[in-house]
Amino acid sequence: MVDGITRADITGAALVLLTNGGLHALAMRRIAAELDVQQSALYWHFDNKQQLLAAVADLVVARVEATNARKWQNRILGLGSRLRDELLRYPDGAELVATAIAFRLGAGRPHQLFTAELTRAGMGDDDARVAASVFVHFVVGYTTDEQQHHQAAELGAIDRLDVATGRFDQGLRLIVAGAEAQIATLDAT
Amino acid sequence: MVDGITRADITGAALVLLTNGGLHALAMRRIAAELDVQQSALYWHFDNKQQLLAAVADLVVARVEATNARKWQNRILGLGSRLRDELLRYPDGAELVATAIAFRLGAGRPHQLFTAELTRAGMGDDDARVAASVFVHFVVGYTTDEQQHHQAAELGAIDRLDVATGRFDQGLRLIVAGAEAQIATLDAT
Repeated sequence: MVDGITRADITGAALVLLTNGGLHALAMRRIAAELDVQQSALYWHFDNKQQLLAAVADLVVARVEATNARKWQNRILGLGSRLRDELLRYPDGAELVATAIAFRLGAGRPHQLFTAELTRAGMGDDDARVAASVFVHFVVGYTTDEQQHHQAAELGAIDRLDVATGRFDQGLRLIVAGAEAQIATLDAT
Repeated sequence: MVDGITRADITGAALVLLTNGGLHALAMRRIAAELDVQQSALYWHFDNKQQLLAAVADLVVARVEATNARKWQNRILGLGSRLRDELLRYPDGAELVATAIAFRLGAGRPHQLFTAELTRAGMGDDDARVAASVFVHFVVGYTTDEQQHHQAAELGAIDRLDVATGRFDQGLRLIVAGAEAQIATLDAT
C-alpha cells in the first residue's frame, strides 16, 4: 500500500462516521481526516464516492443471514426481519443500502439470499429474482420510511410519531402469501 | 394575501423547479426568486420546507386515479402502473413522494386509493391499509430505484444501465396474488 491504508480501513472508518452521524457525516474529507490521510489516498482504493458508499452498504448488510427454520415461509420472514434489524443499526442505514442497490454497486447480498430461499422453495430462477426484488423493495422501503419518520420527529419537523407496530410482519406475510400462490400454481401444472 | 402570492403559486413554482432540476432545485431561495418575493413570504404559507415539499408531493400524485377495470386485481395493477407513471414525470418524483409519506405530511392519495380498492375487494379495513402500504412501498421503492439508477448513469457514476423490463408488472402481480390469497381465506371462514 502506497499510502499505508487498506480498503477495510476506509470502510471501517466510514462505518463509524455513519454510526455517529448518518449519511451526512460520510464526506470524503471527514473519512480522510478520521484516518489522518489526504483525500487522494481514498481515491487510490475507490474510483469515486459512490463506490466507497456501496462498500459501506456491503458492510451494513454483511451480517444478514439465512435462518434455519424448517418452512421456507418462515425462513423468508426471518430473512426480512434480520435485514430490517441490520438496517436499523445505523442512522440512514436503509437509505444508504437503497442507493447502493439503485446504483447496482453494492448491497446485493439480501437479494441473493431471498432468491436462494425462493428457488429452494420451488420457484424458477427468473420468478425468484423478481420475487426477491419485491421483498427487498418492501423491507428497504419500509425501513427507510421508519428511519426518516423518526428523524423528522427528532428534528422537530413533525410533532408526533405515527408508527403502527406489527405492520412490518403483516406486510411481509402478504408477499409470502403471493409467493406461495405462485409456487402452488407451478406445482399444479 | 399580505404578500400577494397564494399557496398554489408557491407549489406551482416549486413543481416547475422540480421538473427542470429535480429535488436539488427545490431550495426556498430559488422558489422565492422564481416568484420574485422574499423567502419570508413563503413562510407565511408554509411553516417549514418539509411542509412545502409535502404540498408539492401532493401535486405529483394528484392525477393518480382509480381505473374502471371490472376485476379488482386489474384495478390494483392499473393503480400501481399509474402511480409509477406520475412519479416518473418528475426527476426525483419518487424520492420526493417517499419523503412526504415518511413525514406523514402529504402524498397520502395513493395509499387511500389502494385501500379503497382492497376494501371493495373484500378485505377488512386494517388488512386493507397494511396491504395498501405494501403496494405503495413497492411502487415508490421500485420507481425511486429506477430514477436513481438512470441518474447515476447520466452522471457517469456507473457505466451502464441495468434495467430489466417487465419486472414491475410481475412484482405487482405477486403482491396481488398475496392479497387474493388473503381474501380467499376470509371468504372461506
